[in-house]
Amino acid sequence: MATSIEHKMVYRLAEGSAGMVSLLGSKGAHASEMARIGIPVPPGFVITTEACLEYFKVGRRLPEGLWDTIVSNVHLLEEETGRKFGDSHNPLVVSVRSGSAVSMPGMMDTILNMGVTDLTVGGVTNMMNDERPAMDAYRRLVQGFGSVVLGIEKDKFETRLEMAKTSRGLTYDYELTPAALRELVTEFRNVIKDATGSDIADDPWVLLRQAVEAVFDSWNNPRAITYREFAGISHDLGTGCVIMAMVFGNLGSDSGTGVMFTRSPATGEKTLYGEFLTNAQGEDVVAGVRTPQRIRTLETEAPGLYKQIEEMARTLEAHYGDVQDIEFTVERGKLYILQTRTAKRTAPAAVRIAVDFVEEGVLSKEDALGRIPASDITQVLMPRFDGDAKALATQTALLAVGVGGSPGAASGVVVLDPDRAVERAEAGDSVILVRHETSPDDVHGIIKAQGVLTSRGGMTSHAAVVTRGLGKPCVVGCEELHVDMVARTATARGVTVAEGDLISIDGGTGEVFVGELATVEPNADDLHELNVLLSWADEVRKLQVWANADTPQDAQRAHQNGAEGIGLCRTEHMFFAADRLPHIQALLEVGPQASKVIRETDELAKALELAPASERESLIRRVKEAREKVESSKEVLAFHTELAELEKFQTADFYGILKAMEGKPVVVRLLDAPLHEFLPHYEDLIREEEQLFAAQRASNGSQASFGAVLPRPEQRDAQGFLLTPRDAQPHDAETAGERGESVPMSEAAVEHHRLLELVKALRETNPMLGHRGCRVGLTMPEIYEMQVRAIVTAACRLTEEGTKINPEIMIPIVSHVNELKWLRPRLRAVAKETRERLGVEVTYKFGTMIEVPRAALTAGEIAENTEFFSFGSNDLTQMTFGYSRDDAETKFLNHYVETEILPWNPFDSIDFTGVGRLMRIAVEEGRRVNPELPIGICGEHGGEPYSIAFCHEIGLNYVSASPYRVPVARLAAAQSALGHLKSNI
Amino acid sequence: MATSIEHKMVYRLAEGSAGMVSLLGSKGAHASEMARIGIPVPPGFVITTEACLEYFKVGRRLPEGLWDTIVSNVHLLEEETGRKFGDSHNPLVVSVRSGSAVSMPGMMDTILNMGVTDLTVGGVTNMMNDERPAMDAYRRLVQGFGSVVLGIEKDKFETRLEMAKTSRGLTYDYELTPAALRELVTEFRNVIKDATGSDIADDPWVLLRQAVEAVFDSWNNPRAITYREFAGISHDLGTGCVIMAMVFGNLGSDSGTGVMFTRSPATGEKTLYGEFLTNAQGEDVVAGVRTPQRIRTLETEAPGLYKQIEEMARTLEAHYGDVQDIEFTVERGKLYILQTRTAKRTAPAAVRIAVDFVEEGVLSKEDALGRIPASDITQVLMPRFDGDAKALATQTALLAVGVGGSPGAASGVVVLDPDRAVERAEAGDSVILVRHETSPDDVHGIIKAQGVLTSRGGMTSHAAVVTRGLGKPCVVGCEELHVDMVARTATARGVTVAEGDLISIDGGTGEVFVGELATVEPNADDLHELNVLLSWADEVRKLQVWANADTPQDAQRAHQNGAEGIGLCRTEHMFFAADRLPHIQALLEVGPQASKVIRETDELAKALELAPASERESLIRRVKEAREKVESSKEVLAFHTELAELEKFQTADFYGILKAMEGKPVVVRLLDAPLHEFLPHYEDLIREEEQLFAAQRASNGSQASFGAVLPRPEQRDAQGFLLTPRDAQPHDAETAGERGESVPMSEAAVEHHRLLELVKALRETNPMLGHRGCRVGLTMPEIYEMQVRAIVTAACRLTEEGTKINPEIMIPIVSHVNELKWLRPRLRAVAKETRERLGVEVTYKFGTMIEVPRAALTAGEIAENTEFFSFGSNDLTQMTFGYSRDDAETKFLNHYVETEILPWNPFDSIDFTGVGRLMRIAVEEGRRVNPELPIGICGEHGGEPYSIAFCHEIGLNYVSASPYRVPVARLAAAQSALGHLKSNI
Repeated sequence: MATSIEHKMVYRLAEGSAGMVSLLGSKGAHASEMARIGIPVPPGFVITTEACLEYFKVGRRLPEGLWDTIVSNVHLLEEETGRKFGDSHNPLVVSVRSGSAVSMPGMMDTILNMGVTDLTVGGVTNMMNDERPAMDAYRRLVQGFGSVVLGIEKDKFETRLEMAKTSRGLTYDYELTPAALRELVTEFRNVIKDATGSDIADDPWVLLRQAVEAVFDSWNNPRAITYREFAGISHDLGTGCVIMAMVFGNLGSDSGTGVMFTRSPATGEKTLYGEFLTNAQGEDVVAGVRTPQRIRTLETEAPGLYKQIEEMARTLEAHYGDVQDIEFTVERGKLYILQTRTAKRTAPAAVRIAVDFVEEGVLSKEDALGRIPASDITQVLMPRFDGDAKALATQTALLAVGVGGSPGAASGVVVLDPDRAVERAEAGDSVILVRHETSPDDVHGIIKAQGVLTSRGGMTSHAAVVTRGLGKPCVVGCEELHVDMVARTATARGVTVAEGDLISIDGGTGEVFVGELATVEPNADDLHELNVLLSWADEVRKLQVWANADTPQDAQRAHQNGAEGIGLCRTEHMFFAADRLPHIQALLEVGPQASKVIRETDELAKALELAPASERESLIRRVKEAREKVESSKEVLAFHTELAELEKFQTADFYGILKAMEGKPVVVRLLDAPLHEFLPHYEDLIREEEQLFAAQRASNGSQASFGAVLPRPEQRDAQGFLLTPRDAQPHDAETAGERGESVPMSEAAVEHHRLLELVKALRETNPMLGHRGCRVGLTMPEIYEMQVRAIVTAACRLTEEGTKINPEIMIPIVSHVNELKWLRPRLRAVAKETRERLGVEVTYKFGTMIEVPRAALTAGEIAENTEFFSFGSNDLTQMTFGYSRDDAETKFLNHYVETEILPWNPFDSIDFTGVGRLMRIAVEEGRRVNPELPIGICGEHGGEPYSIAFCHEIGLNYVSASPYRVPVARLAAAQSALGHLKSNI
Repeated sequence: MATSIEHKMVYRLAEGSAGMVSLLGSKGAHASEMARIGIPVPPGFVITTEACLEYFKVGRRLPEGLWDTIVSNVHLLEEETGRKFGDSHNPLVVSVRSGSAVSMPGMMDTILNMGVTDLTVGGVTNMMNDERPAMDAYRRLVQGFGSVVLGIEKDKFETRLEMAKTSRGLTYDYELTPAALRELVTEFRNVIKDATGSDIADDPWVLLRQAVEAVFDSWNNPRAITYREFAGISHDLGTGCVIMAMVFGNLGSDSGTGVMFTRSPATGEKTLYGEFLTNAQGEDVVAGVRTPQRIRTLETEAPGLYKQIEEMARTLEAHYGDVQDIEFTVERGKLYILQTRTAKRTAPAAVRIAVDFVEEGVLSKEDALGRIPASDITQVLMPRFDGDAKALATQTALLAVGVGGSPGAASGVVVLDPDRAVERAEAGDSVILVRHETSPDDVHGIIKAQGVLTSRGGMTSHAAVVTRGLGKPCVVGCEELHVDMVARTATARGVTVAEGDLISIDGGTGEVFVGELATVEPNADDLHELNVLLSWADEVRKLQVWANADTPQDAQRAHQNGAEGIGLCRTEHMFFAADRLPHIQALLEVGPQASKVIRETDELAKALELAPASERESLIRRVKEAREKVESSKEVLAFHTELAELEKFQTADFYGILKAMEGKPVVVRLLDAPLHEFLPHYEDLIREEEQLFAAQRASNGSQASFGAVLPRPEQRDAQGFLLTPRDAQPHDAETAGERGESVPMSEAAVEHHRLLELVKALRETNPMLGHRGCRVGLTMPEIYEMQVRAIVTAACRLTEEGTKINPEIMIPIVSHVNELKWLRPRLRAVAKETRERLGVEVTYKFGTMIEVPRAALTAGEIAENTEFFSFGSNDLTQMTFGYSRDDAETKFLNHYVETEILPWNPFDSIDFTGVGRLMRIAVEEGRRVNPELPIGICGEHGGEPYSIAFCHEIGLNYVSASPYRVPVARLAAAQSALGHLKSNI
């Protein structure tokens, strides 16, 4: 391709810089940057990501001219090192590494020891003054080339390596003699010959070219594609290819290799944090094959080297203004930095580092606020194991102790392979993935697991890195744990847990327990840095952050986490408690009928007011009759009794919540749930009825049927919803007909049947679109009136007690302004009456959920009839997309997200285009009517950063999140205000 | 009130005109108009509707100055007639009638014979030359005043009237002697005294004032309010009050009273149509108490009078340019026109009259098109009884024959009172309301009934008038039918039907049959005038009218009714036939799993294309393995077998429909329904399972449980949806645990359990918002591909046969443009492949339903990926309001409409404000992208006139209605284009 010649496809390290990440890849750019500022980097050059993309564009061929450029750059390297590529006496050995603009740890290919061949291995021996490492390098090259470049299963090499050791009674690779290694090389070459039909090439230039192609190809290998899809990385970046002279950490005890963070990636502590492995190549550390020593141990063992490493670390950290993740090698006492990059860290570490950087003067507060992905700080607030439970477990259930690889506490069933982990997790289980060590092939299992436990590897092992990125607990290097993949068990200290057994892991301490442990929230000490950071966030954010809380305990937690109000207090949850449910069930049994009778009497009385003389006489009589009927109705009596009971409970509930919030606004949402949710499951009742019937029949041993003997329903008005003849008869008749039997039913069966009929009457085909929220408020207004009385009563009591309160009452599922026009005056009157009766001055607002598309579309007229808006973005998303949240994810939505039909799950983050458009309409048109209209959001999106950014952009007053997401929301709101965070529009 | 004086509150007849309807009421304005143009109207004056409104405004008192004005106008009347109000020798007798701007037949009050008192009855006798009618007038006054003005139950008077006759062995009122009538007057006055505590006033002026107040009051009597709410009439109009000198039709055989239409209100035939009752007052006709003679009989009996009447009729018809409904009285040979108004008519009559008026040169085509409410013409197309069924029924089941009061055929259960009619109708029954005669108190029952049958009354009786307005069949004057309100039966010709028995009525012929009769569609002859009118409509309308049709028969009917295309051919209905359902069920059992395996294999093959050398070897092997697995999978095999079976059925279906439409566009909607709809009901399966279990246990007589013995599910991939262990185990285990039993299950039980598990897997909490439409098309694309192959195959065959075809393929439930981006190319490829395989050139379009709010909100990007839009306004309404159509109406929506929370049911007529806003957005933004984008509507609103007007206004290309609504839509579209019809915005 002619165009490819126009681009510079290869950069020597000193030619590049940190700013060239997209062209050189992160690894290449940072190696260049280091070379530029005088850090000791092995000499080398970088092939650009553009060259990689061009490679794919022209059909997986090296672009024209590239190979020649590579060859001439290798020649420059020869000049620089004084060695010669393929020379039998003084050979140049190089590494060929992948590296894209965005870190994809372990996903792409790297080939080391390029240049070691049959011909040059003697020269390498000379260079190293030792035959063993030279032969080992050759062994590694053949193994790596075979598996990485030629795609031969790793096991074929590993098995032979293991056999080589066991047959000789050895434990470690480095115990293998040069002769044994040479035998292995021969075996490996045979493996390659068997698999590919030809021997590995002898010409190192041929191998080098294949290696470069393999690096490029690895950009599109399936696991890299999967990872990018999971991590949301573009497929259009390509990978750079870094070719560097090799330095050797395996030349004896004065050599070694290490990986380190300039501060602790777990806690943020300002201390070098990482591992060092003497007499080893870098891949030994990353793969976690041997457990390395802590880098801090070098401080005493090799203080000079340690000092050199620490100086280098601080220089790099200062240069980049962020914590670095550094790979280095010591070759016979000389330090080489192989790679540096911004370190991944746990959220607690990120918070501490950001705060420390501000205190050290490295960052401004504003920049520091931009450093932490807002969602990550939930990790700081993550539960840990309850102290007592853990103390006990430590005595009785401690299975093993490893290294804390990623903080947090998790319990789940032991699962030994990633596929099964996915399976169990999708079936609803909490899973702890237990492995010898993890590799990129395990990522799908790690994603689905609650936590990971490995018997090998350290802080920088694959498992630790990946889980920290995902914010999941991980214990690594738990060497005392014997994982038996055949028996499918894990054993330590004489205790064996089988796959499927429950264990608990503490990713902070590395402890592993048998069974499930109770967890607790972090304490104030843990939260110190976070609170500093959040106080800065509070200074800059424009959005208020409120919380959703249904209980005084939730309100308390919300308050502690900095919530400035309760944006959603759901009242239905209050009815589910064991002492309340019977009352709401009793209420539902009589309510519709009672409410109807009361309403009809009221309507009659109203008609009387308007009636002409000629009608008055008969109307007066009818009103009187209706009133007597109401007064003598046992439904009405029961209705009022249950309402009164529930009012007592509700008053206590609201008292507690209003009190906990100490004068901050508390938005109480009136009953929203579909009514059938308070009743037993229909299916269960049907099964029970059939079972009761069978039992009855068995005990009677004769002709039997339900229909024939069930009591006829009480005589009722046409709309009486209980046992209408029409509902009750056909099924029974049918059943009776089919069976041709008849039996007297027990009282229990009759009662059961009544309940079943009640459930049947309240069931709906699409409850989400059903008789709920203000629709119940209009058809059975007594419930909302009871709730308003309870709220105002609680408010009055607190006011009398001198506690400040600020209640707001919210009407859900409004779709038409007339619903408000009918309800609001009625509820205001109840509030006024209650306040006056109690003789206490309290203020309250009446507001409206905007959660039905039509409400958003008619927000102008709704704004004229309400005192605030609050977006119910869950329902708004359900109705705008036509997705039932209960089922959509497993039925099709997960598939949509996986296949990128949808860019993300709109229940996680607001769909800015569709749902967001409705929200914009509602804000614009609501504020046009009332420029001061307070508008918030109380759906689950209120705690999600991109959604918060969107809410900031469209000018909401507040977001309301679950209490534990309040800190996230505070940070995200600040980031939005500072422009660090933007919604995706 | 000072302001009231400023208005002229009383108009003499000659001062008013037809243009003053809102001020004088319809009755007053038309009486004025008649007086103005020289029609013989009794002298009189009108109190304005403004005076009535003022009356209510000041607290139900006559506005200041009104009484004085009335008195002076009565004096003017005295001058005009030469009689004196309250005079004992030559008394003036007047009528006091209500009358608002909009006709509310029989809803408000009228008092006749005002001025007849103890003092004046002798004078009246002199004037009449007969004591009987004078005394009868007095009797009527007392009776009317008592019941209408004083609100005493009518029965109290009627019973005494009946007793007076029966005790004397008389049949008719007019047989009562003056003495008997005087006795009755005394009795009636006693009734009044008993009820009110005081005697009726002797002073006629006092009575007059009370009568005026009663007329005003009657504007707000409950039944008037109910009627206005039902009829959508404003409550702010008020009634006028017409006071006229009485003329008497009961002065002997040369007197009489009549009601007539200038053309037949049933058929439109140009002939006087009505009833005349000799020696009777007008109220006798309206109330239907005696069955009058047909007016045409006067042509021979009193040719002079008839000629006079006919001339008057034609004069009035010509003057008003419309058919008139005239009340007249003949007093000793002299004709007086009491009232004229535009006649209500049946739809067939309206059509014929409109066409005739155009042919007679009275109306332009454009005006004629505006004369008929579009919805009414469905009546022209109303089914009638099947000829054979009716012939047979006439032989065997004819119960009685009355007068055809309102055309059409209906069957239903006999119900004898309106309350019970409402009850039964709301319980879902078809009801025929059977009454002696109906009154305004029965209207709520008439509204809910399918038809009405009365034993008394004629064409102009209450029942006939109201049912014609409602477009329901009615048989009146069925005198041979004996209705027994105590036994609750109706008997004729020796046959008795009880309440709840089925009968059928023919409102055209007046026949009544026992049992339910089959119905047929009207034939071409019936439709002649309608077709003329619709051909005019077709000339002016802008909207095309298409039809919804799922079968060739429907398509045929649509075509006959003038549909220009099929806007919605639902394919799911095709699967419900007995020969297809097993295939779709079998398909659903294997489809998800099979489709997943196929998809994964495809993905693997795609990965192979992109894979680097190092991965190819293992990928090639995996693809090969996967392919083998697919080929050997029994699910995949079954899936393809069932798809092939269904494709055969579908091809035949589409062949038929495309052929029937002869080249007109046919929009086939791909599968839309939630999948579980094709399976048995979950509840039934649960019951059956429990029953099977009980049976099994009984036959074993031992320890038994399902869980213990059900086959373990086949081993499957994690996502295999059939019997996952998790689904199957817990319930069974629980059941087993509770019962502590175990039994081997029959094969039937095992098979049943499999089906239950399948249903369980496919069930959804909110199916309306679930896995349906294109969501299935994306997760199981083989079904849509099969459908597209079937459509294109049918198209190709027809093209080969030389038949013109025009298929369009529509994708439902689109909410995100990416669904189309994924599906459309895939389906186009299938279409292309099919076309090429068959070697036939056919064209087809791919379009999109706009039925999810998000689709409307993102119509711009969707328009870039589709060839047409079609609004699915049912679903769009469901989701925009958050109303589940399945339940909303009974749960709360009917209540909303009744209490005017909603101005109308948005499933009947588009909600212009909310749903309509989304439609506007979609049209504007879709056309911005593609100005030529064809846009239609295929929801049920497509056949509703106001919705059609809205569609015209926002610029749609077509509406698609059910075949029988096509004529309505053609007319409504024309009315919209002409400005006769506007949506309510």
